[in-house]
Amino acid sequence: MPKLELHPDRLFPADPSIRTIARDLYKSVRDLPIVSPHGHTDPSWFALDESFGNATELLLVPDHYVLRMLYSQGIAMEDMGVAPAGSGAAADPREAWRLLAANYHLFRGTPSRIWLDWVFSEVFDLDQMLTAETADLYYDRITDSLQQDAFRPRALFDRFNIEVIATTEAPLDTLEHHAQIRESDWNGRVITAYRPDPVIDPEFEGFRDNLRKLGELTGEDCTSWKGYLAAHRQRREFFREMGATSTDHGHPTAKTADLSSGECEQLFARVQADDVSAADAELFRAQMLTEMAGMSLDDGLVMQIHPGSFRNHNPQLFERFGRDKGADIPVRTEYVHALQPLLAKYGNDTRLSVIVFTLDETTYARELAPLAGHYPVLKLGPAWWFHDSPEGMRRYRRMITETAGFYNTVGFNDDTRAFLSIPARHDLARRIDCGFLAELVAQHRLEDWEAGELAQDLAYNFAKAAYKL
Amino acid sequence: MPKLELHPDRLFPADPSIRTIARDLYKSVRDLPIVSPHGHTDPSWFALDESFGNATELLLVPDHYVLRMLYSQGIAMEDMGVAPAGSGAAADPREAWRLLAANYHLFRGTPSRIWLDWVFSEVFDLDQMLTAETADLYYDRITDSLQQDAFRPRALFDRFNIEVIATTEAPLDTLEHHAQIRESDWNGRVITAYRPDPVIDPEFEGFRDNLRKLGELTGEDCTSWKGYLAAHRQRREFFREMGATSTDHGHPTAKTADLSSGECEQLFARVQADDVSAADAELFRAQMLTEMAGMSLDDGLVMQIHPGSFRNHNPQLFERFGRDKGADIPVRTEYVHALQPLLAKYGNDTRLSVIVFTLDETTYARELAPLAGHYPVLKLGPAWWFHDSPEGMRRYRRMITETAGFYNTVGFNDDTRAFLSIPARHDLARRIDCGFLAELVAQHRLEDWEAGELAQDLAYNFAKAAYKL
Amino acid sequence: MPKLELHPDRLFPADPSIRTIARDLYKSVRDLPIVSPHGHTDPSWFALDESFGNATELLLVPDHYVLRMLYSQGIAMEDMGVAPAGSGAAADPREAWRLLAANYHLFRGTPSRIWLDWVFSEVFDLDQMLTAETADLYYDRITDSLQQDAFRPRALFDRFNIEVIATTEAPLDTLEHHAQIRESDWNGRVITAYRPDPVIDPEFEGFRDNLRKLGELTGEDCTSWKGYLAAHRQRREFFREMGATSTDHGHPTAKTADLSSGECEQLFARVQADDVSAADAELFRAQMLTEMAGMSLDDGLVMQIHPGSFRNHNPQLFERFGRDKGADIPVRTEYVHALQPLLAKYGNDTRLSVIVFTLDETTYARELAPLAGHYPVLKLGPAWWFHDSPEGMRRYRRMITETAGFYNTVGFNDDTRAFLSIPARHDLARRIDCGFLAELVAQHRLEDWEAGELAQDLAYNFAKAAYKL
Repeated sequence: MPKLELHPDRLFPADPSIRTIARDLYKSVRDLPIVSPHGHTDPSWFALDESFGNATELLLVPDHYVLRMLYSQGIAMEDMGVAPAGSGAAADPREAWRLLAANYHLFRGTPSRIWLDWVFSEVFDLDQMLTAETADLYYDRITDSLQQDAFRPRALFDRFNIEVIATTEAPLDTLEHHAQIRESDWNGRVITAYRPDPVIDPEFEGFRDNLRKLGELTGEDCTSWKGYLAAHRQRREFFREMGATSTDHGHPTAKTADLSSGECEQLFARVQADDVSAADAELFRAQMLTEMAGMSLDDGLVMQIHPGSFRNHNPQLFERFGRDKGADIPVRTEYVHALQPLLAKYGNDTRLSVIVFTLDETTYARELAPLAGHYPVLKLGPAWWFHDSPEGMRRYRRMITETAGFYNTVGFNDDTRAFLSIPARHDLARRIDCGFLAELVAQHRLEDWEAGELAQDLAYNFAKAAYKL
Repeated sequence: MPKLELHPDRLFPADPSIRTIARDLYKSVRDLPIVSPHGHTDPSWFALDESFGNATELLLVPDHYVLRMLYSQGIAMEDMGVAPAGSGAAADPREAWRLLAANYHLFRGTPSRIWLDWVFSEVFDLDQMLTAETADLYYDRITDSLQQDAFRPRALFDRFNIEVIATTEAPLDTLEHHAQIRESDWNGRVITAYRPDPVIDPEFEGFRDNLRKLGELTGEDCTSWKGYLAAHRQRREFFREMGATSTDHGHPTAKTADLSSGECEQLFARVQADDVSAADAELFRAQMLTEMAGMSLDDGLVMQIHPGSFRNHNPQLFERFGRDKGADIPVRTEYVHALQPLLAKYGNDTRLSVIVFTLDETTYARELAPLAGHYPVLKLGPAWWFHDSPEGMRRYRRMITETAGFYNTVGFNDDTRAFLSIPARHDLARRIDCGFLAELVAQHRLEDWEAGELAQDLAYNFAKAAYKL
Repeated sequence: MPKLELHPDRLFPADPSIRTIARDLYKSVRDLPIVSPHGHTDPSWFALDESFGNATELLLVPDHYVLRMLYSQGIAMEDMGVAPAGSGAAADPREAWRLLAANYHLFRGTPSRIWLDWVFSEVFDLDQMLTAETADLYYDRITDSLQQDAFRPRALFDRFNIEVIATTEAPLDTLEHHAQIRESDWNGRVITAYRPDPVIDPEFEGFRDNLRKLGELTGEDCTSWKGYLAAHRQRREFFREMGATSTDHGHPTAKTADLSSGECEQLFARVQADDVSAADAELFRAQMLTEMAGMSLDDGLVMQIHPGSFRNHNPQLFERFGRDKGADIPVRTEYVHALQPLLAKYGNDTRLSVIVFTLDETTYARELAPLAGHYPVLKLGPAWWFHDSPEGMRRYRRMITETAGFYNTVGFNDDTRAFLSIPARHDLARRIDCGFLAELVAQHRLEDWEAGELAQDLAYNFAKAAYKL
């Protein structure tokens, strides 16, 4: 029966001279609190503090990384415990878990394997590898544990040494769970972030309906350009009061625009019509990034841009199972021309902070590092989504550091809804960053004490500073 | 006189802890039979089993990797033994060989050097490096050897421990050499693959003539859309009977389409006209990929797509010397939008298998790994052509494994017409893959026994399974 | 107080077996003379041989790498000693220097740090790191040294062991400083290069005025296509007499064209008009690259193409401070289609030599290595600008060598106006190249004596041969 053991040197470069340095650096940051400035955990977990249910509900069904890999090998969604949107049942959770177990070899070489093994070993104290043979042992151990108080959301939050975590909500959200957390006697710091895509993207499901609701919620006339902007300002202020320090924008491209207010009014009228054109939708999103930057100048919210995902690429799957099932695919993304209108207007204003992410690694060295290495407002988010992995993070550091330096980056984001994997993800990032710093030291490109300072910055300080936490 | 010696540790990472692991893994796969599921050897070699001629005819004139490098340094095609298409003579083979020998340093750092050195050392038992001084020794040793029975195609096939090899033929091919091989008393398994570009690509030389011949060969009316599809079905069935397990499609782009049958009929009429537009040609190729996928659902042939080469970039060279002289240049290639119509239609049908290749490495992590890591029908072909090299293969594994895993890949393709280099190419791939796996083990991202299983899979099992061999 | 010490093994790979080989290779090239075939030093320095002024004037204000990094962290241009274009003062040089010193940690992990530390240590014999505490020590040591004869341009040139250096001038330049150098009793070899962008690019500031001046200077009618071409020929000949062996072309894209002479005449008329279109401007630049190649066939000047920079991306900064302040950003660049017209016409003519550079690393393996590995006229320039760095150079070698080999490359270019950093830049390139060669030797892909030959070629021979020096 194969053992499960997390090796203390895992993820460090193999060369002994580098590994020794990496190990020392890692020791100095291993126990720092977790700062999680951007992610997708559910605030109701921390508000209600209920049990997470069973192993399958917690670790399989909601994890689109795991679903897509199993699906790619011909395993049906239903068999993984995912119920179709309308009628139709999903497999029994234990059966679904057995399927994961029998196919766990598919994750060899992937970050999911690293995250899950950490959760199994560190959270549930399992010491044999997940296989067909250990499937039930795992299912029972995890499911039983989840019934215990020590495995409820707040207890895990505390155990994970999380200093602060940001969730992500839309403007129509009333943030009642956040209110509940703040009013509770629990000390955990859970804040929100303003993600206005549903009321900004004319191609978002229910956009016009969302505008109407935004109007109701704010008392502003959201059919007029001015009222619409005022509604944003009002909601941003409400989010800020509820702890938000940032906004987030998940657009198909990074395009920005700087139209006159007359053009904006006309465009806003057109995107409220029945048959909005793709070009108008794109232009409106572009203009709204610039508007959001302008509002950030006033209210101090840090702006995040996450562009470049082709959402719901698989229409059959989307119809049957909905969003976030692993069928979002990155596309080529351009930044130099796209961001120019926003940067031409606000790029030199040191009161503003814009953090840019990418799913297109070709832009690291060519576009993003040169832009962030020049504009005062720009910083680079960490390796994101498909690139939030050992090799992905190494490529990120290798391709951006020489032009953008370390100080135009913002530390690590876990960007996940897989709450239990958060410490694993931060641990992975800390190990890879320490390995990278150790390489620089071993090549005499950095002194060891400089690497020591940077290790602290990358693991903790940069995230706090960049997100104003 | 510099020695030629193949070092047993060649191509393994230098770090001793990694190298030790790599060496062990490699030992376990070194002697596995060769499965060559895609390539361009000539079936007449194995049908007729005649001598390969002389050193220049075998190793210089047909190798476009070698020709292009020498040509890039100002050496004329004629001087390399390549005769112009019309009139005009080429250099004496021995003179041409001397030119290769005198310029062999140009191949330093390239895979051609690795492949050729293997052939010289392992096949012809040469133990000095190829230089101007050893040119004649080489020429004589190789040319004399080729006259011996042990160096005929079938003997080499057996010596190379080839379990199965696929050639590539067009629908108009009558496959008589394949028939001859099957009827012979030789046991070597040589199968064909269906490569319909000449009757699918309206911009292929002689397209309309090819359609006419396809009609004659099949008795179908190839001027009508229905007859044309029926002719494809008939030829696919014939190829399948002659051992084919796959089709192959070498299009300029990866574009697919899903038109109505009425649109298809009109488009097919237009592409048969004198002045077919580039847009129609592209759309027709796109639609035909989807049609081929549909036929694969019925007949079980695995589909390969090899897009992204700008063929015959050098018009002067093309006019004088024809195709395949080293002037095919990769271009940027898009997959996410391009494959969407085909995937929307057939992407979830586990009966279908589509293997995608690329010459554009920027798509590995951004597009291909996410697509193959989601769609059940998609698998990723190995590093191809210009990337079939130590660094190319390493980049491939580093960029695709974390998202697509190992199990959405299909093992190695040699994809070559340079028959003698086939074992060298598989050996190179096995060494690089073992080195990559060893790195993962040394970084404690994989257990050693898992790496051992994967080494077998990458060297042998995956190719057999993916190509149904 | 942290020490400044240049480690003898800096920039070599950490693995001991590789490092030993790298060290030996480096020893054999360390003291070779510097050949600097392309750069932006000012010929007046060597003509007049005046003192370089103070530390800030020499090392901060003119270095756009340093300016952009400090600016990206919110430091104002004025505070770095850069005066606005019109009125307005800049900080006192010593204050500006203190700002650099206090922020020197921003350069951790960047090549600027490596270059500057070399200058501080080797040229000015400083042995403590630059920090806020050592700012004045540095400022005084450097500024005082610059008043000494040993620190004047010619003395440094000799001390740096520069065999030849090329500057870059526009056709309207009268090259009087070059004349002065040649007439002097100093033996330093300083040559020019023909950079005609101001009279070729219709979007260059003052283009029409420049054409008028070109007419006056040459006595040719520069409003007619024929006169304009004749003026180019005349100025190229003058530059050639003044030592030039190359031309240089800094276009937004790599596009080339091959129009009829009638079309050229009409296009040339259009680009002289008030309202030249972007498409005409692009087409004219494209056609002129092909014209320049044709002239190079006659006069033997080596042609360099440096495409792909979006100049002056930050309009506010450009208006206040002008060009070259760190706001030039690379964009995606295409070569395969772009260069085809020029290559179709002249690509096989071994009399011509075209050296291509890129800021888009995605083209290394996909486009540039295959093109240079085929066309006799094409060679690849070294890693450029943002990629002139340890990781950038490694990526360059890893991505181009397997397809283009070493012999289609041209050695190193420092491409800088930062005169004092030139030895540091060549040293960095030699160290990285030796490290790369050592890796190949350690992986048994190259014999040690072959690596020894290549080390000499990359450090010295290739630049001399490729630039006809």
